[in-house]
Amino acid sequence: MDDRTDIIMDLERETRTGFPEAIYGGGKTIEQSVRAFTALVKRGGKALATRCSREALDAISVAHPGTFIHELAGVAVFPAPARREAAAARSEADAAVDVAVLAAGTSDLPIAEEAALTLEFSGFVPDRLFDVGIAGIHRLFERLDRVHSARVVIVCAGMEGALPSIVGGLSSVPIIAVPTSVGYGANFQGLSALLAMLNSCAPGVTVVNIDNGFGAAVAAIRILRQISRLA
Amino acid sequence: MDDRTDIIMDLERETRTGFPEAIYGGGKTIEQSVRAFTALVKRGGKALATRCSREALDAISVAHPGTFIHELAGVAVFPAPARREAAAARSEADAAVDVAVLAAGTSDLPIAEEAALTLEFSGFVPDRLFDVGIAGIHRLFERLDRVHSARVVIVCAGMEGALPSIVGGLSSVPIIAVPTSVGYGANFQGLSALLAMLNSCAPGVTVVNIDNGFGAAVAAIRILRQISRLA
Amino acid sequence: MDDRTDIIMDLERETRTGFPEAIYGGGKTIEQSVRAFTALVKRGGKALATRCSREALDAISVAHPGTFIHELAGVAVFPAPARREAAAARSEADAAVDVAVLAAGTSDLPIAEEAALTLEFSGFVPDRLFDVGIAGIHRLFERLDRVHSARVVIVCAGMEGALPSIVGGLSSVPIIAVPTSVGYGANFQGLSALLAMLNSCAPGVTVVNIDNGFGAAVAAIRILRQISRLA
Amino acid sequence: MDDRTDIIMDLERETRTGFPEAIYGGGKTIEQSVRAFTALVKRGGKALATRCSREALDAISVAHPGTFIHELAGVAVFPAPARREAAAARSEADAAVDVAVLAAGTSDLPIAEEAALTLEFSGFVPDRLFDVGIAGIHRLFERLDRVHSARVVIVCAGMEGALPSIVGGLSSVPIIAVPTSVGYGANFQGLSALLAMLNSCAPGVTVVNIDNGFGAAVAAIRILRQISRLA
Amino acid sequence: MDDRTDIIMDLERETRTGFPEAIYGGGKTIEQSVRAFTALVKRGGKALATRCSREALDAISVAHPGTFIHELAGVAVFPAPARREAAAARSEADAAVDVAVLAAGTSDLPIAEEAALTLEFSGFVPDRLFDVGIAGIHRLFERLDRVHSARVVIVCAGMEGALPSIVGGLSSVPIIAVPTSVGYGANFQGLSALLAMLNSCAPGVTVVNIDNGFGAAVAAIRILRQISRLA
Amino acid sequence: MDDRTDIIMDLERETRTGFPEAIYGGGKTIEQSVRAFTALVKRGGKALATRCSREALDAISVAHPGTFIHELAGVAVFPAPARREAAAARSEADAAVDVAVLAAGTSDLPIAEEAALTLEFSGFVPDRLFDVGIAGIHRLFERLDRVHSARVVIVCAGMEGALPSIVGGLSSVPIIAVPTSVGYGANFQGLSALLAMLNSCAPGVTVVNIDNGFGAAVAAIRILRQISRLA
Amino acid sequence: MDDRTDIIMDLERETRTGFPEAIYGGGKTIEQSVRAFTALVKRGGKALATRCSREALDAISVAHPGTFIHELAGVAVFPAPARREAAAARSEADAAVDVAVLAAGTSDLPIAEEAALTLEFSGFVPDRLFDVGIAGIHRLFERLDRVHSARVVIVCAGMEGALPSIVGGLSSVPIIAVPTSVGYGANFQGLSALLAMLNSCAPGVTVVNIDNGFGAAVAAIRILRQISRLA
Amino acid sequence: MDDRTDIIMDLERETRTGFPEAIYGGGKTIEQSVRAFTALVKRGGKALATRCSREALDAISVAHPGTFIHELAGVAVFPAPARREAAAARSEADAAVDVAVLAAGTSDLPIAEEAALTLEFSGFVPDRLFDVGIAGIHRLFERLDRVHSARVVIVCAGMEGALPSIVGGLSSVPIIAVPTSVGYGANFQGLSALLAMLNSCAPGVTVVNIDNGFGAAVAAIRILRQISRLA
Repeated sequence: MDDRTDIIMDLERETRTGFPEAIYGGGKTIEQSVRAFTALVKRGGKALATRCSREALDAISVAHPGTFIHELAGVAVFPAPARREAAAARSEADAAVDVAVLAAGTSDLPIAEEAALTLEFSGFVPDRLFDVGIAGIHRLFERLDRVHSARVVIVCAGMEGALPSIVGGLSSVPIIAVPTSVGYGANFQGLSALLAMLNSCAPGVTVVNIDNGFGAAVAAIRILRQISRLA
Repeated sequence: MDDRTDIIMDLERETRTGFPEAIYGGGKTIEQSVRAFTALVKRGGKALATRCSREALDAISVAHPGTFIHELAGVAVFPAPARREAAAARSEADAAVDVAVLAAGTSDLPIAEEAALTLEFSGFVPDRLFDVGIAGIHRLFERLDRVHSARVVIVCAGMEGALPSIVGGLSSVPIIAVPTSVGYGANFQGLSALLAMLNSCAPGVTVVNIDNGFGAAVAAIRILRQISRLA
Repeated sequence: MDDRTDIIMDLERETRTGFPEAIYGGGKTIEQSVRAFTALVKRGGKALATRCSREALDAISVAHPGTFIHELAGVAVFPAPARREAAAARSEADAAVDVAVLAAGTSDLPIAEEAALTLEFSGFVPDRLFDVGIAGIHRLFERLDRVHSARVVIVCAGMEGALPSIVGGLSSVPIIAVPTSVGYGANFQGLSALLAMLNSCAPGVTVVNIDNGFGAAVAAIRILRQISRLA
Repeated sequence: MDDRTDIIMDLERETRTGFPEAIYGGGKTIEQSVRAFTALVKRGGKALATRCSREALDAISVAHPGTFIHELAGVAVFPAPARREAAAARSEADAAVDVAVLAAGTSDLPIAEEAALTLEFSGFVPDRLFDVGIAGIHRLFERLDRVHSARVVIVCAGMEGALPSIVGGLSSVPIIAVPTSVGYGANFQGLSALLAMLNSCAPGVTVVNIDNGFGAAVAAIRILRQISRLA
Repeated sequence: MDDRTDIIMDLERETRTGFPEAIYGGGKTIEQSVRAFTALVKRGGKALATRCSREALDAISVAHPGTFIHELAGVAVFPAPARREAAAARSEADAAVDVAVLAAGTSDLPIAEEAALTLEFSGFVPDRLFDVGIAGIHRLFERLDRVHSARVVIVCAGMEGALPSIVGGLSSVPIIAVPTSVGYGANFQGLSALLAMLNSCAPGVTVVNIDNGFGAAVAAIRILRQISRLA
Repeated sequence: MDDRTDIIMDLERETRTGFPEAIYGGGKTIEQSVRAFTALVKRGGKALATRCSREALDAISVAHPGTFIHELAGVAVFPAPARREAAAARSEADAAVDVAVLAAGTSDLPIAEEAALTLEFSGFVPDRLFDVGIAGIHRLFERLDRVHSARVVIVCAGMEGALPSIVGGLSSVPIIAVPTSVGYGANFQGLSALLAMLNSCAPGVTVVNIDNGFGAAVAAIRILRQISRLA
Repeated sequence: MDDRTDIIMDLERETRTGFPEAIYGGGKTIEQSVRAFTALVKRGGKALATRCSREALDAISVAHPGTFIHELAGVAVFPAPARREAAAARSEADAAVDVAVLAAGTSDLPIAEEAALTLEFSGFVPDRLFDVGIAGIHRLFERLDRVHSARVVIVCAGMEGALPSIVGGLSSVPIIAVPTSVGYGANFQGLSALLAMLNSCAPGVTVVNIDNGFGAAVAAIRILRQISRLA
Repeated sequence: MDDRTDIIMDLERETRTGFPEAIYGGGKTIEQSVRAFTALVKRGGKALATRCSREALDAISVAHPGTFIHELAGVAVFPAPARREAAAARSEADAAVDVAVLAAGTSDLPIAEEAALTLEFSGFVPDRLFDVGIAGIHRLFERLDRVHSARVVIVCAGMEGALPSIVGGLSSVPIIAVPTSVGYGANFQGLSALLAMLNSCAPGVTVVNIDNGFGAAVAAIRILRQISRLA
């Protein structure tokens, strides 16, 4: 960066919005990603990076031992969410988990994991329900109780993006739909799923940007904080 | 029409393609529609017109008593499909009907009727299954036997256009999906349903143009003629 | 409707999804709208219709005295939300209202009212904050306390659709953004606001279809029901 | 894959839809493709993979000797369709072949082969008719008898995508049109062919996604199964 | 028009470009159209107006008796092309006509007539070949000699817009393709035909704007003037 | 290629359309390009290949010594147009050259050369007028005589694509506009120039596909053959 | 408006941004437009309304005698710009006028007038240069001195939108380009002109929304205020 | 380049338009970029190149020692702007700087630097205000005085592109908005920011092409020259 520039940090973002700054590795070099990660760790003792290349994840991992890396999802979390077993236990014990994260197909997994890991980074408990797409809709029906017991549901789907409508027609829970860019041809990089979700016949389905698992998780956290405010 | 023009009739279309010329009332004046209808009746004793305004339907009806008119669908059929009760009877008696015509919502009805009436015009037996959209998917599940017993299924849906994917995941029957322009905003006049159907995760779903109930029926007839060729 | 069709009612939608069937007057004739409204009133003693023409609203009003009509928003609600004064009172007394409904400009008002009236129809208390668009952003800042005290915020904006980003950067509350078709030229019937909101730099903003005030309200109700489940 | 995920297999897909799960190699790593291929072979003794890179095909071939590989089409089939000579014999002897697969130009060949190989994988007999595009339409006319003798016709074309319309105007057989992404500039990755086919003036032409040779074959198989149900 | 504006006439356009100013009635009031028509008649003794409403055509006709009006095409020509019979005679006598104007379907006729009348306005001889679309391609083949004998061919087609490709594959004559907005749904107001023509596999096909019969005629005239320069 | 495929050559294309088959190197491997080039040379003693990579050009050059290679344009011509000096001479002597090929900017040069070389391949004489874009329109004005003396004008331009309109307003010669994909951002890979040219206010401008210099040349040749038919 | 709404006026907009609130009549009823106009007159003694229907203009005129009405442009200005003759005088006397407003064709006049009247409303002096489009570019060249003598140039053009590029290549003055929706077919309601202007090869051309003559004028005023700050 | 081409230099561009020719490195080879840079240096003793790869920048640097290179922005400036410290000094001393260059996020920096360096190349003084996006809008408010003191403001923003609207609502200065392609998914390579800026509710905001920092700087220079003409 040029020394003449005048960069202004946003130090109070977590206070204002309930979620700290995170690193979007999309357009960054490896060096930039590591430097930003380090800055966040130094400032607050924790950091989250999404959309990182394998090389960037490796470099972050070397710089910050103890970081949890999910290569497929391109996510780095520091410190590694230690409360995992506890969380799983709680999930079994309690009737209600915080968020159910659904993925229609295996190709939607990276985005679904981005959402799930963002939730764990903030201390919430996601229940992963993958491969429940509408090509074999019985797989969803057999697990409907887990959907009903969640406080919020995140639904990731590409191609025709129909899963949020199905879930929305079966449940009264808040639904955050994430269109993924999975598909080809007239999928137009996620446009088909995006338009389908925006036009859901199940009212009350809300939508985030294509492949924005991170944003869906933050939207869920905004809801969960309101619930815990009252609880 | 100007006398200098040189219009060339396509008299053998039915011989070649298995379906006679029909009238698309979309861009025609009332007078043009009636004249074309009369020409078809004179030539072959039968006529089908789609996408007609109420006024055009009335004018056709006056010119050709005995025409069956479906105002909502904008369709005129001559002669009125007399075998209706017989067909219904046959539909009950047989295990298999020719075509099941599904409509997701009430707004998709005009397009679904356009398909059903085109089938009846050609002597086939449609089984109408309306209002079985995915916002209340149990309504479809309760009638799955009627889907399974059809030789071909036509599925009309607007908005997120997900119904063909559901049907395609539950049945091995040929599926012709008709995206309708039902919706608003990011529906973009049927684009959302069109893209969704083209990206169906249920393989083997085929698609026709937006609101093209007529084309879906002709596609079904092409299949049915192959079946009867062997039967 | 033709007598051969087989319409299937979705009687348990409220049980399943927390919100009863409502009437979208968009593609309906006056007669259809009134008939559907009457059917809902007979079944459940209440009805909501959106996107109705002035003529349809008048006809509903004649058929069902005691219906509250909002002409600008194209909404009919039966019975008229009687708890209005009480609600206003409660809104003043309590620190927290249920939902703040923001509109950027006066042209966004019909959509914002559609959302607010849907909330009132379901017994929730909306706090209307209109004309707080970013062309004069101080108008929002002077009322930030009312935003902060809401459990959910619905933000309606057309043109560049930037208001949800501003609110999202200032508050940790759940935000449902409604792009409106207000604008002209490169607005492309709401596309500019829709894309802007999907790309919000404030994470956790969720989006519904263009002009879908009704859907935003149902999304808010899904959240509010989760909150009251715990409260 | 992370051990916390909950993958749900769709074991009965063939029973329900008439076609088993296949592998779309598009977004998969070589390792993922091989693993999925092996899983299918183990479960059912057969496997089909499409859109695989040369490297993935090689790896599959090494892991499963006896796999038929078509590099240009990116397809792997196990076991190699042994009935080939028999099929060719039958094709000559019989008046009717199962499916005629047409390709407009040499660039459409990979997609056409994807369709033909999918048909052979399922035991059906495709008749390949390549390079019969409309730039030299006499080439099609000289082979029209082979089109007429097929039960179903799959037509692959890029650029202006006109071949399905020509075939549809000359034959009463079911037609499945596959727009290919062949072209450049205002082709917009297959959009020109897709729109042309959806707007075919030959009624009854149905369309699948851009470059979706696999889907076209499955659509043909859905039809062929109905025919054989009666035969 | 306001008196302060400073309108600058383009008096030498015909000298420069070979074609005089013509009136596009599209966005004009009846009064504006008549005034402009009168101005052209006064200046040069002749005038051509396209895309006029029936009312505008009537008003022009009243103001300028002797104007030829083609209502369907929305065209007014003054003076009425008197050489018509002579032209027809010449067309029969000569081997070569100036321009063959093809129209795929009856709905493309207004645009084809706009082209033909513009040619006649300039003293050229169009040969009208209407209803030769690819749904019944034999109708074109039976008249191929008339295509081959033309110096230039204008081809008007909507929907899948394939006719120019067919003609381009059969003839070495210059081809000007006019996409029309005939169609619905995924036709997108002529986009399907436009893209198809731009992607024609028959090389050397050129394209004008959607519904621009006038522009196609002027393009043909540019070519014809070059031919006559040498003849 | 698989031995089961049935490739059909189009041997009489030149007889029918006035231009022989050429090789589009776009989607071809080096091997495919060389093989196709060799086939054309063997059959007719000449060959033209466009859109070839540097590697493909080198391979063709090795296989066919005496081939003229234009690396920037990606074109190979065999035999090398020997009549070049003669042509230049003729161009100076005559008042009229066959075709003026204009390019707006240096980035449009590859496309303009593709057109010019295609013309030379067929024995026509192009006059190259490069870098005459509207950012410095005086450069065009100083060379207008060369535009006026041409029988046909090909105009290549990217970005706002305005050059054909300027030329069309100054000359009565046939104009073939080639939008190029030169630009970035809201250029959308040539869409801006394409739309601009289709909407030219200079009537009679015709357009070919984005970057289609080859097609523009063939369109010019179609015109030139008509002229020479009479000459 | 409902009494429950909470409208917040933006009283200091002129202080902050240099231009007072104006009325966009686009989506307003006649009654709403008149009421808003009256409010502005009462508050500041002046008002400007754009995009008003003829009926709304009449109603405003009746309510506020002394309002200047431009029907074609849909604009109402109060008080009528009395300094007009003075301004014209000044324009002749001075070397420099404030703003030159160019319009390519007569159809662009309403938008150009919207800009010119907005400037006059604010006390600035526009020099109108209409009908100087590129189809007859000499008309512009003959008036170049008037372009050079302006401080800012507003250029309105539809169709291919090339005029700003020409002006930008000839002058160093600030240029604000206004794409108009004039055109049809592939014009896509102004998209062609918008994209062309955004891709202008003349650097430093800036663009406003389609048909936004008002916005262009305000942009010019922002510049003029900076100039007068120093002068 | 081929020796037959006829390249015409535009030597007087700076005289005409106030800004000399610059090199757009986007589609150029390293060799072409260096050659063009050298040509400009030879002719006028200075050169500016934008959108250069790291390799091209290195090659330019080697060929012309004393060139200032900004790798992130892809810009080369010769000679290095020596007046930098002086300029900074002047910026502190004066109340008014020439141009404030704002960037919403760190990812918008390359484009903002392209603008700033183009300004410095021409001797103007930019004031860089980076990372003042609306996700933390207080960062802008704390620096509003620097915005108010500028003669022109350039605002670079990607994603929802809202920053220009905010600035436009707070200041009366000329605003040039630069949409950047920063974002993903429904950002569509900068379309979301472009549409948002064109639809700004703050009147008088003008827009340049996506990522066109260079064009924004030239637009600013056009304004600054007018100011200095009077000063």
